[in-house]
Amino acid sequence: MVPRYSRPEMVAIWSPETRFRIWFEIEALAAEAMAALGTIPAEAAVAIRRGGSAKVATITQADLDRIDAIERETRHDVIAFLTWLGEGIGPEARFVHQGMTSSDVLDTCLAVQMTRAADLLIADVDALLVALRRRAEEYRHTPTIGRSHGIHAEPTTFGLKLLGYVAEFERNRARLLAARAEVATCAISGPVGTFASVDPRMEAHVAKHLGLAVEPVSTQVIPRDRHAAFFCALAVVASGVERLATEVRHLQRSEVREAEEFFHAGQKGSSAMPHKRNPVLSENLTGLARIVRGYAMPALENVALWHERDISHSSVERVIGPDATITLDFALMRLTGMMDKLTVYPERMAENLESLGGVVHSQKVLLALTQAGMSREGAYSAVQRSAMATWQKLGKPDAQDFRTNLLADPEVAACMTAEALDRAMDPARDFVHVDQTFARVLGGKPQG
Amino acid sequence: MVPRYSRPEMVAIWSPETRFRIWFEIEALAAEAMAALGTIPAEAAVAIRRGGSAKVATITQADLDRIDAIERETRHDVIAFLTWLGEGIGPEARFVHQGMTSSDVLDTCLAVQMTRAADLLIADVDALLVALRRRAEEYRHTPTIGRSHGIHAEPTTFGLKLLGYVAEFERNRARLLAARAEVATCAISGPVGTFASVDPRMEAHVAKHLGLAVEPVSTQVIPRDRHAAFFCALAVVASGVERLATEVRHLQRSEVREAEEFFHAGQKGSSAMPHKRNPVLSENLTGLARIVRGYAMPALENVALWHERDISHSSVERVIGPDATITLDFALMRLTGMMDKLTVYPERMAENLESLGGVVHSQKVLLALTQAGMSREGAYSAVQRSAMATWQKLGKPDAQDFRTNLLADPEVAACMTAEALDRAMDPARDFVHVDQTFARVLGGKPQG
Amino acid sequence: MVPRYSRPEMVAIWSPETRFRIWFEIEALAAEAMAALGTIPAEAAVAIRRGGSAKVATITQADLDRIDAIERETRHDVIAFLTWLGEGIGPEARFVHQGMTSSDVLDTCLAVQMTRAADLLIADVDALLVALRRRAEEYRHTPTIGRSHGIHAEPTTFGLKLLGYVAEFERNRARLLAARAEVATCAISGPVGTFASVDPRMEAHVAKHLGLAVEPVSTQVIPRDRHAAFFCALAVVASGVERLATEVRHLQRSEVREAEEFFHAGQKGSSAMPHKRNPVLSENLTGLARIVRGYAMPALENVALWHERDISHSSVERVIGPDATITLDFALMRLTGMMDKLTVYPERMAENLESLGGVVHSQKVLLALTQAGMSREGAYSAVQRSAMATWQKLGKPDAQDFRTNLLADPEVAACMTAEALDRAMDPARDFVHVDQTFARVLGGKPQG
Amino acid sequence: MVPRYSRPEMVAIWSPETRFRIWFEIEALAAEAMAALGTIPAEAAVAIRRGGSAKVATITQADLDRIDAIERETRHDVIAFLTWLGEGIGPEARFVHQGMTSSDVLDTCLAVQMTRAADLLIADVDALLVALRRRAEEYRHTPTIGRSHGIHAEPTTFGLKLLGYVAEFERNRARLLAARAEVATCAISGPVGTFASVDPRMEAHVAKHLGLAVEPVSTQVIPRDRHAAFFCALAVVASGVERLATEVRHLQRSEVREAEEFFHAGQKGSSAMPHKRNPVLSENLTGLARIVRGYAMPALENVALWHERDISHSSVERVIGPDATITLDFALMRLTGMMDKLTVYPERMAENLESLGGVVHSQKVLLALTQAGMSREGAYSAVQRSAMATWQKLGKPDAQDFRTNLLADPEVAACMTAEALDRAMDPARDFVHVDQTFARVLGGKPQG
Repeated sequence: MVPRYSRPEMVAIWSPETRFRIWFEIEALAAEAMAALGTIPAEAAVAIRRGGSAKVATITQADLDRIDAIERETRHDVIAFLTWLGEGIGPEARFVHQGMTSSDVLDTCLAVQMTRAADLLIADVDALLVALRRRAEEYRHTPTIGRSHGIHAEPTTFGLKLLGYVAEFERNRARLLAARAEVATCAISGPVGTFASVDPRMEAHVAKHLGLAVEPVSTQVIPRDRHAAFFCALAVVASGVERLATEVRHLQRSEVREAEEFFHAGQKGSSAMPHKRNPVLSENLTGLARIVRGYAMPALENVALWHERDISHSSVERVIGPDATITLDFALMRLTGMMDKLTVYPERMAENLESLGGVVHSQKVLLALTQAGMSREGAYSAVQRSAMATWQKLGKPDAQDFRTNLLADPEVAACMTAEALDRAMDPARDFVHVDQTFARVLGGKPQG
Repeated sequence: MVPRYSRPEMVAIWSPETRFRIWFEIEALAAEAMAALGTIPAEAAVAIRRGGSAKVATITQADLDRIDAIERETRHDVIAFLTWLGEGIGPEARFVHQGMTSSDVLDTCLAVQMTRAADLLIADVDALLVALRRRAEEYRHTPTIGRSHGIHAEPTTFGLKLLGYVAEFERNRARLLAARAEVATCAISGPVGTFASVDPRMEAHVAKHLGLAVEPVSTQVIPRDRHAAFFCALAVVASGVERLATEVRHLQRSEVREAEEFFHAGQKGSSAMPHKRNPVLSENLTGLARIVRGYAMPALENVALWHERDISHSSVERVIGPDATITLDFALMRLTGMMDKLTVYPERMAENLESLGGVVHSQKVLLALTQAGMSREGAYSAVQRSAMATWQKLGKPDAQDFRTNLLADPEVAACMTAEALDRAMDPARDFVHVDQTFARVLGGKPQG
Repeated sequence: MVPRYSRPEMVAIWSPETRFRIWFEIEALAAEAMAALGTIPAEAAVAIRRGGSAKVATITQADLDRIDAIERETRHDVIAFLTWLGEGIGPEARFVHQGMTSSDVLDTCLAVQMTRAADLLIADVDALLVALRRRAEEYRHTPTIGRSHGIHAEPTTFGLKLLGYVAEFERNRARLLAARAEVATCAISGPVGTFASVDPRMEAHVAKHLGLAVEPVSTQVIPRDRHAAFFCALAVVASGVERLATEVRHLQRSEVREAEEFFHAGQKGSSAMPHKRNPVLSENLTGLARIVRGYAMPALENVALWHERDISHSSVERVIGPDATITLDFALMRLTGMMDKLTVYPERMAENLESLGGVVHSQKVLLALTQAGMSREGAYSAVQRSAMATWQKLGKPDAQDFRTNLLADPEVAACMTAEALDRAMDPARDFVHVDQTFARVLGGKPQG
Repeated sequence: MVPRYSRPEMVAIWSPETRFRIWFEIEALAAEAMAALGTIPAEAAVAIRRGGSAKVATITQADLDRIDAIERETRHDVIAFLTWLGEGIGPEARFVHQGMTSSDVLDTCLAVQMTRAADLLIADVDALLVALRRRAEEYRHTPTIGRSHGIHAEPTTFGLKLLGYVAEFERNRARLLAARAEVATCAISGPVGTFASVDPRMEAHVAKHLGLAVEPVSTQVIPRDRHAAFFCALAVVASGVERLATEVRHLQRSEVREAEEFFHAGQKGSSAMPHKRNPVLSENLTGLARIVRGYAMPALENVALWHERDISHSSVERVIGPDATITLDFALMRLTGMMDKLTVYPERMAENLESLGGVVHSQKVLLALTQAGMSREGAYSAVQRSAMATWQKLGKPDAQDFRTNLLADPEVAACMTAEALDRAMDPARDFVHVDQTFARVLGGKPQG
């Protein structure tokens, strides 16, 4: 966790204080269930709730140090916590954690933390979607060149390009919801999951009050396929962040200049070259995506724990639990801000669209020629011939545009008039279905 | 794709013949839609369907060579196919692929292949679940030691252990279903996804007949976050295979011997040591899981294609599309066979369960002591003391079991009679909730 | 292994025939060593060499089928081979493989295969270096814009850009050599590496004749950290392939057009758009790099085998051994061909270099101003001001170049004449050290 | 970076204070070189060294906050630092960083940090090797069972097992040294690596004083293949940590009990089960290894930066630079402590060695039978027959050991007397080469 890539809301979920409060909540709920079941005295549950609440309400650094000190001796984190907690409860403390095992507390706590983290991430995606939808609408009909292989292909609109990201992040939202459901389970089933010394009703009680489902079969732990699926979902979302970041990096290239990250007053792009304005946010996001992707691997390796559990997953999760969610949260917020303020240059888009002498209309000509009776292969050759001739002289004194070259080609001229060619190449035809595609994603009837 | 780790059903999905047949089906459906829309003559669609069907019905090696030869010249796979296909259609071939771009065909075909692959994988999991449920029922009440950290913890049943895998593979089944839905979309939207030269109704027609949804916003391609999610799901499933394989490897260890892979007549475990019977299937599965996991990374890197697409994803998918699905399919089938025939040794389980002098009942004693009024810390110390004393003399002449040591401990004796201790340690208490857990997964009312 | 991404030379290394020939060579050498040591009769070694040589000299498909059939019964690949081999040797066959274990054969064979594969890869890099050095020299003094963040930075030469790849692939060559040395060891030490039934002199004999070092401590296997290091080296090399491929993809962009992959007569860039010429080779290489990178993960997971060995590494290596080396070999050859024939457009480089109105000289002006007495901050502001003004009006009617804007700035004018500014911005100053950098890599004295 | 998995020595390398001190050292050395070359006044270099030294000697939290504040405005970390530094230098501050670009400072600083980190890691491995060599010597002749596939194979010694790890960590040491050399380069070559505004002699001066080599061809940055190779090396070392940790986890299993992590007075193994002593250190190390492995992937993805650089690598390195080195450093130290204090149980090893009725001597019998004239296949069958019979009745009332079963087998009896069998099975034969293997690794003449 690097402070510069962290937001306090997400960091707080993973703080020791939060963890201890959730641990206490689990123990208190468990005690209340046991009291209701008659396993422990009713007064014990009351004492635990009262004494513990006071203890965790204001956890100080001294408390954290004290817990650490006990852990150094016992080498066991939950026992250290319970010992500290017991100091605030008195003799009834012996009824805390009855029949439970540490993993009951640890894994259920992790479930609470991961679902809270998922909630933040989902909210992040919602904020991003607001920005993306707004910008997509703003440029719904702004022509720009579509590119495949980095090569001009056919016209599209900048709004349509952005709409694709709207659709992707709607999918990412659904994936985060599914990932949240994957990990939102509670297990209080004892050392090997048999409920030998705890009653399943206790588990049900705790689960219900924490908003979790009951884990159908826990061993000592909640099975780690759930967590692996969670971190994989984060990796997919992060890769989506990278896709949009990569788009912006391309658009801001000096030769393209169709869009640009907002450049703040006072900002300096380079220590050496005062003229520089660099797409540093989107490059940063690219790196952050790599990091989040990297965390999926150890999460997947965590699945195959030995027998009813070993603790190898724990060190992994102490690292990637916070680091993956904090990094992705930061990345999503940064992306939202970047897209919200992205400077867009429609004139430059128009300029680039026209820069290749009209060859970007080659498919429409190809189709018109086949419709006019040429074979597909013959039409392809003719159009390729004129397009290459146009391309090779781009920017040269003897340059000729695509239309001129086509009309000068006897094979083309033989089956198509200049008027027919102009109809075929009419840019207006490119966008007739744009509104329909918008309606697919944003709903409503197609505009226009 | 290594033949020894491949099943013909899955291999067939990825054969050139299958691919070309799906390509043709897409082109034929598209032509029929265009004919219905009046874009091309009705006779053209008929000619395409008839001529093409004959062509793809019996693709010979000579056909594959011919297509390869054309591709070597054009350096374009779809054009090579269309040229070959056109030879069987005649002049109407010029109406094939009208307004479409190669990716329309390639990506929709990939969707068909991936959904078929997913269907096989889901069937594999179903078969595995049948085997696992059967074995879980078979050993529902067979006592065995539960282990955490590889150390004896508390008794459980072998059926309950297996039930955890049933639950995990039910989750894996759901993940495969979700993964199938992720990739089951069709895109026929032209070079940059604008439908400039194709009608969206054509896309709807093809999608419907192929059992796919329409991709809401395609660029030139179906966005690769879908495929990344698919391969991540496979990685999670593979990791579940590894978990069960690892369990079997542990159970077959010479010192454990609680279960064993079926050893065939004529089988030889080692070229050097005739006494060996090794868990080679489960070790093999462990390796296969690593391979499938490894394929998730390039799939995730494929997401951030440039602009409306680049073709970097293609070589990745040519490799991992077949390799990941073929390997996982093989692994699931091998796992099913292995679990189906697993030799289980309940007597040895009982032996191991008893081998530590009864210390595995320590929690129940701890609870009884706290219930009897000892502080949690005091009870913990007393129980730990007796347990360690038992452990350290295991197998020695002066060994004493846990019960004896406890009764000899003045602090314990002070608050608990031998009868109370025996009640506390009663093994029957360990399994009272086993049926309830079974009911959670297998349904029905708890037995007994 | 996908045929289209495979070269026969590398495929042959991993064929069953090659494997069986190496297995035989190991067994024959071992037998000869045993005969020399008196462990087996001298005639036995002669019979083994003679009978086995004949057997492996012409392995037919029928032989492969026969070995497979025996393996299906014994479920052991080495025993199947030895049985088949023995059929050609007669009664002396009982002296084959004396005291050895399968891994002695398998791992030493893998070492031979991996070193042969490494030799091919090193030769590939050598060929690539020849091409890269030639092209670097060719464009040693060809001005082009250097870019950071995709934004024009300062002039460089195209040869200098290529020289960086020369240096990188020289490092990659060294890494492949080191990787080769990692895996070039032989182990013939028996079932658990104790030499209980084999003499270490036998291992030394086999190692020497195969050109391998002796593994200092084998368990049952050669330790897998060696193989992990090997596959990591391949991943680094593949990432270098991707870096150069990415550079070409950028240079070929429609807006950049500074270089282009060779476009063959008859080649078709797109089924839909006849005007397209796409950087398909470099995009393909990008994907291949992802694949090779992905193989590093399972190789790393293979290291932690259980005890003296388990066989989980085997399925992984059956896949990634061939797949990683075949894919990287193909990628390197493809990259060499691509760079060899890359079409370079120096005029377009010059055009792009000039396209931003001279702001790319901003650092030189900044330095001149500070040398002339302005504070760093003041100079930075002044230069940034003029650069931004130039940038914002690029291509507009009221555009003014950087020099004009600077001279119109009172702060700049106050400390620098037009002549001084021209001296500062002189492009010739950019390249004074280019030859010196070339000399670092290509040796010789700096030219000029 | 998780505090519990961090050592202060390694953390300090990555602190902001350290980073700023290295940045200053680079700038001061550069200024001194420039002064010597006459590029800036000699007094300027003196002022920079003096003013800056005072400034960085005692960096307070207020300084860090001040630098952060400037960075928030300029959005550029190096400019923020230079501005803050300049406040302590006065007007000569304008001569700082002349002709350099931020990456000159950042990348050279990173090289210093990574080499320092490598030095700590190498020292860690040295300490581990001391412990491992000591323990290997201690148990050089302690018999224990060697296992393949988790199944008893043949006897080995515990020292020999440990010796394999000595050899592996000697290789890991060499890899870390190579990794250190990979990243130990300095680049001061200006914005695109052309030395347009800096003199290569300045780079040479800085490199020399920092103990670095000169980067032959830098672009704007030191090429990232170097860093990728570094992090891959860490991943290999971490996987070696996992291998040893896995061995200990196996040895401590309840059924094996051949070794055990040191259990401290006051330590508690489980909150629920007072009898537990778990291999928590080795399990923790297994998890840490997964984490370090996971960092290799983003490092590999960092290689293919765009053109002369983009800044996507930066966020990755801010995370994995510290996290990978800190985690591996901690893991190595923990492993050293664990191995240093590992409790070893030679009696239990002897017990396990004998537990399978002698079948672990099967290979020696097989060899003796073939030497006595039986065919390999016949001998194999006979030995397998007796071994399986022994195995199946292990622990049963009618159990018979391997020797008894063999002697009762007519085929065996026909060609071997009881005395010959005893000679063949003599355990002493297993260890005759152990000293020789020790001599390979630890040098000296074989003992005994």
